[in-house]
Formats: sequence, structure tokens, C-alpha cells
Amino acid sequence: MTAFFELDTPCVLIDLDRVEANLQKAQQAADRAGIALRPHIKTHKLPRFAKRQVELGAVGITVQKLGEAEVMADAGLADMLLTFNIIGAAKLRRLAALHDRVTIRVVADSADCVAGLSRTFAGTARPLGVFVECDTGMGRCGVQSPEAALELARRIAAPGLVFAGLMTYPAAGKYREADAWLARAKALLEEEGVAVPAITTGGTPDIWHMDQAGAATEYRPGTYIYMDRSQVAAGAASYADCALTVLATVVSRPTETRAIIDAGSKALTSDLLGLEGHGHVLDYPEARIVGLSEEHGTLDLSACARKPEIGEAIRIVPNHCCPVSNLFDRVNLVRDGKLVESVAVAARGRVD
Amino acid sequence: MTAFFELDTPCVLIDLDRVEANLQKAQQAADRAGIALRPHIKTHKLPRFAKRQVELGAVGITVQKLGEAEVMADAGLADMLLTFNIIGAAKLRRLAALHDRVTIRVVADSADCVAGLSRTFAGTARPLGVFVECDTGMGRCGVQSPEAALELARRIAAPGLVFAGLMTYPAAGKYREADAWLARAKALLEEEGVAVPAITTGGTPDIWHMDQAGAATEYRPGTYIYMDRSQVAAGAASYADCALTVLATVVSRPTETRAIIDAGSKALTSDLLGLEGHGHVLDYPEARIVGLSEEHGTLDLSACARKPEIGEAIRIVPNHCCPVSNLFDRVNLVRDGKLVESVAVAARGRVD
Repeated sequence: MTAFFELDTPCVLIDLDRVEANLQKAQQAADRAGIALRPHIKTHKLPRFAKRQVELGAVGITVQKLGEAEVMADAGLADMLLTFNIIGAAKLRRLAALHDRVTIRVVADSADCVAGLSRTFAGTARPLGVFVECDTGMGRCGVQSPEAALELARRIAAPGLVFAGLMTYPAAGKYREADAWLARAKALLEEEGVAVPAITTGGTPDIWHMDQAGAATEYRPGTYIYMDRSQVAAGAASYADCALTVLATVVSRPTETRAIIDAGSKALTSDLLGLEGHGHVLDYPEARIVGLSEEHGTLDLSACARKPEIGEAIRIVPNHCCPVSNLFDRVNLVRDGKLVESVAVAARGRVD
Repeated sequence: MTAFFELDTPCVLIDLDRVEANLQKAQQAADRAGIALRPHIKTHKLPRFAKRQVELGAVGITVQKLGEAEVMADAGLADMLLTFNIIGAAKLRRLAALHDRVTIRVVADSADCVAGLSRTFAGTARPLGVFVECDTGMGRCGVQSPEAALELARRIAAPGLVFAGLMTYPAAGKYREADAWLARAKALLEEEGVAVPAITTGGTPDIWHMDQAGAATEYRPGTYIYMDRSQVAAGAASYADCALTVLATVVSRPTETRAIIDAGSKALTSDLLGLEGHGHVLDYPEARIVGLSEEHGTLDLSACARKPEIGEAIRIVPNHCCPVSNLFDRVNLVRDGKLVESVAVAARGRVD
């Protein structure tokens, strides 16, 4: 069997035992909290891991784009929530085709979005479930107040559609504020006679607070399967939990304190997520990845007592594992330091 | 014919007339300056554009990774410079296979790198040309002094190898310093009886200073074919020169001054290159792209008199066009606002 350090670099290693431990730990936490788990597949983009998440007790999966939903439907995943506004005739046709073969629900945060969905699904035998997306502090999509959520929920009572509940992606660390927002919205809707079948929230940074999710009935974490440097910084994981690493080779040692590796932004991405540096070097934790160009990573070794040599393979925990999955056509599944299988990242690049 | 704004989003548009104008302008500038042009294909990753660059007068192409060289060799490109240290048995075997079928030369900046190349190529009929990579201010790979360049050039006089000259990637805006470094190195090597067959430099930021390239005999620009927001900021292009845009759709207008588009870091990358914001919105130049998550871009419309509506398609010039090419399986070639052809990005993801 091939040892991981013999693989051609740069490449992605996925530690299968850590994946399994991360999946089990989160499912157990959700079970204890009495909240449904609906993992986001954007992190791994692999049908096999989506299936394992469902086997362990997830109620279904979350996808971000139609292309991801299509790949997962082709692979046999049967229940998905697409947490993105579907706008425009071409995308509405693709959504209708998906709705014909799997259980898929979507979100909306505007009357325009609801109108497009209703035009498309009016007259279908099975209405489309639509959540109202709520901006509970993230500052991205979502209605801006519980009153606006009520108004949009009423609009969803349109031909071909059924109101599925409230959805949010909370700002990291702000789960209490998000919960309070959702509780206010739920109370308002119920006062006004609108039942709220489900409330779905998410985010790996606050995953271990699922038991305090308040009004929420469902949790949609993504990154938890692999974890990464940003999650370690957020206190949601330790490096011993990180299942995805980028294997790179030292290709140059131009000075006593500088090493250049063959992994740049095309392997690690430029995502900083508020961190300094571009990843954590497992084998040389004192090394700092101070710069990336497309194919080169620049390491400052000033703080390293022992320094890597030219030709040496090193493993890096990236700042953000999800977009790393999106850069590689294949990833290497490893166990006990050995390659088990190289697999295609089925939903890679499904950006539309 | 499909109008570009009817395409499903997010997607990449490549304006063929602007590509041709950019290629011709650079070749003419190189011809006037009496310097050979060896374009870097990392920007477009498309054999058709590489061939057009050669047709217009380029002496060959530059590639950054073996995977890119393999794609270009398969497509019939016959002369390439690989500006990356080739380290390790697996990669040396791939290099040898390429050397058997095309003209390929490489770089080295250490005795270790030269030793690996010599072990691999000793005994081959045709020696491998090796440039000494020089760190003339970029702070990445490269020998640190003209004296070190001399020492390494002498080492390259090893079985199977031939010294090809000096190579640098200069820091943007520092072409005078790079030229002075290379001139000192050339003088030293010649004093010591080592002929310097070629000196190759590059970079789009300083491409219009090719006529002042001093000691250099060859120039390796990449980005000039498409140009981007970073090149506009560097003064090397105007937005009217930018051939690559990302077409995105406004999917949400949560507040009066916020728009959310369906292009996030999976379409635009997180590359900032020292700029503020994540791209230039052609149709709404006052809009600022203030945030990206993987699939969402957040626009601040505060400064916009006219504001885009939900469902509207907008075009964005990204900060850095090269990694955008690497994110999309296909790009759309357009002319006069119409789709001409959708083509696969042949060398996308060739990271090793």
C-alpha cells in the first residue's frame, strides 16, 4: 500500500477515521439536543460521505447550488434543502426537473423570488416547500425583520408552493442573537395564525451549542466533517480533529529562514477568514505560511528549531477546507498513513 | 445566437476581440523592443490561445506545472519553458517523458534540484536546458546573489544538462532593480567564462516597459491576454482592455443598499492582490463588492444612483483573472455581445 507521503504533490488527503469520528460526534450531539441534522455537502462534495451522514441519522442533506443538487440526486440522495434563491427561467426549469425525482425544498427572501417559484410550480401535483430566509445578523441574504418574514410566509401560500418554515445562516458566534430573532419571528407568525413547520439554522463554528438552539428544529453544519484552521481558531475543533490536509513538497530553500512549497492559492485558496497566514503546517507548527502565489507557498521558518529540507513532504491544515475541495479533481482517502482510495470530487465546480 | 446575458450564471465570458487586441499589442511591443515573447499560459489554460500566441510571433510558451505542460504538449505546442523547480522521482519521470516529445526547458535554484535533474537526464541523447532562477526582489524562489548564480550555472555543467541562462520573476514595479541584478550576474558569469545564452524575465504589470528590459532577452507575461482589476490598478490596462468577466445574477436585494449576487469566492476567488473589494462591476461601477462567501457576493450599492434589480445579470472584472480560469470547467467565448462557443478549460486544475 502507498504511504501518503509517496503521493505526487500537491494533493489532498482525507483521513477516513477522523471523518467518521467527526460525523458520529456531531450526530450524537444533535440526537442529545433533540435537533435534526441536515449536513451541508459543500464541504466534501462526495456522495459517499453524504450517504454516510444520512446512514448515521441525518434527515437529509443541504446543498448550495442546483449543480450540487443534481450530482447528489444522480448518486441517490433523496432529500435535500437548497439554501439559495433560485432566480431566472433556466434555473427554475432545473429545479422543476429535480423536484420531479427527489424531495427538494428551497428558500426565498423576496416577493420576486416567490413569484418565480409559483409561476413554475403552479399546477404541479406536489407543491414545492419554501422556507423564508431570515437575515439574523449575517448581513447576506434574508428578510430583515420578523414582520417581513410574516409577510413573505403569507405570499408563499401561492399556487404550487407551501410554506416550509424559517431558515437562517447565523453569523459565527452569534447563535444567541439568531435564536432570539427566530423565536420572535415564530411567535409573530403563530400569533397571526401562520404555523411554522420547521426552523433551520446552521454553522460549524457554533455546532457544539446545538443544545441551546432554542427555536430551531434543524441544524445544517458543513465544515464539521473535515474541520480546518478557522474552526480551530473558533474553538470548534482541535488539529487532532482535522481530517483534510494538503500534502505539499518543499521545492526551494532560498534562504536560511525561507522555504517554498509547491502548494499556492490553487491548492490552499486565498481565504483568510480573518486569520493571519495561509494554513497550519502540521509537521512544522512553528512555520508560518506568509505568502501564496498561484503555485508557490512561502514559509517563514524563523521560529523553527528544525527546518524542512528540499524534497520533504509536509502536511498543511488549510484555513478553510470547503473551497480546497473545490480546487481538486480528486482527493485521496487515507487511513493509518496509507492511501485507501483516490476518488473524484463529484460535485466539484458545480457553481451554478 | 445567444446573447451573453442569457447564459446561466455564474459563468466566465471571454471577449475574443479584446483577446486578439491584447495579444497583438504585446507582440508588437516585444518586436519593437527586440525581445522574445514567451507567454505564460497559466492565465488562459487554453491550447487555442497558446497557439494563437505562437502564430503571432511568440517563441514558445511558459508553463508553471508539469500538468499544464502535458496538456499543452498533447495539444501540439512544441516549445515550452517550465518555470518551476522539478523535485522528486515521480515528477522527474514525467519531465523525462515530456522531454522525449517536445522541447522543454526548466529552472533550478539549488544544487539539490540540479542533482535530481542530472540523475534523470544523464545519458539522454539530448541534454535538458536548465535556467538558474534568480531572486531579484520577489522573495520567492531563486538564488540570492550573482555569485550564487555563477556557482549554480557551473553545477549545471553536469551529465545530461546544459546551462540555458538566467530566469527571474521580478517583483511588480521593480523591473529596474531586477534588470540591474541580472546585468550584474551576466557580467560576472561572462567574466568567469560562463556564456549566458538567454535571460528571461516577465510579468504583466511592467509589460509596457519591455523596451527597458536591459539584459533580458525574453519576456514571459501571462495576465496580459485577459487583463484584470489588479492590472488596471497597476496602470498596465484600462477596463476597456479587460477580456475576461464573470457574469453573475442579482439573487437578493435584502436592503436598499445591499445586493447579493450568485458569484462568490468559487467564481471570483478570494485574491485581493492588495486591492479593496473583490472586483469591479462594469455595469454599476459605483457598486463595491464588499464580501464574498463561497456562493454569495455582497455588494454595497450606497454610492449607486441606479441600482440593479433581482434577476438582473451583471458583469464583473475580477481582481485576478488567472485563478478565475482555474475555477471553471468551461468558459464562454463571446464577440459583439453574442456567444460564439463554450470551451473546456483544458489545463484547469493541473496543479501538479
